[in-house]
Amino acid sequence: MNAIQLLGLSAGAFTTISFLPQVLKTWKSRSAKDLSLGMFSFFCVGVVMWLAYGIMMRDIPVIAANLLTLVLASTLLFFKLRFKD
Amino acid sequence: MNAIQLLGLSAGAFTTISFLPQVLKTWKSRSAKDLSLGMFSFFCVGVVMWLAYGIMMRDIPVIAANLLTLVLASTLLFFKLRFKD
Repeated sequence: MNAIQLLGLSAGAFTTISFLPQVLKTWKSRSAKDLSLGMFSFFCVGVVMWLAYGIMMRDIPVIAANLLTLVLASTLLFFKLRFKD
Repeated sequence: MNAIQLLGLSAGAFTTISFLPQVLKTWKSRSAKDLSLGMFSFFCVGVVMWLAYGIMMRDIPVIAANLLTLVLASTLLFFKLRFKD
């Protein structure tokens, strides 16, 4: 692995792991009032497209990051729909 | 521009634009209680790293998407710090 790939994987780790405190906070508080349904809907669609892009570019950091991000972001979308305002 | 680049730019458009409804919602409601400070802090650091990765890979979709995402995500980080719970 070269330095640029390492940077890409680190970037992916940060943007992906960032969703974890939000998932935990929303799970604990059972409150998703301030979260935007539009944000998480658009975001999930975009992440699926990034995943397809990463696969076509054979870009491991892009694939790995977006696969995990999709799991966390779709969990938040589910919470937003589940925990009614 | 080829089809893969177009897919990458579309993916970037979706994940970037997704932050806009959240920025508008938080601006209007002046409420950021349910937003996680950890999420937006980690996310902004990660986006800066993605930007550096995109520049080193000379990957236009990655650069463009992360530049705009940084503006919107850092606005939300500012709102989270500004609009006290």
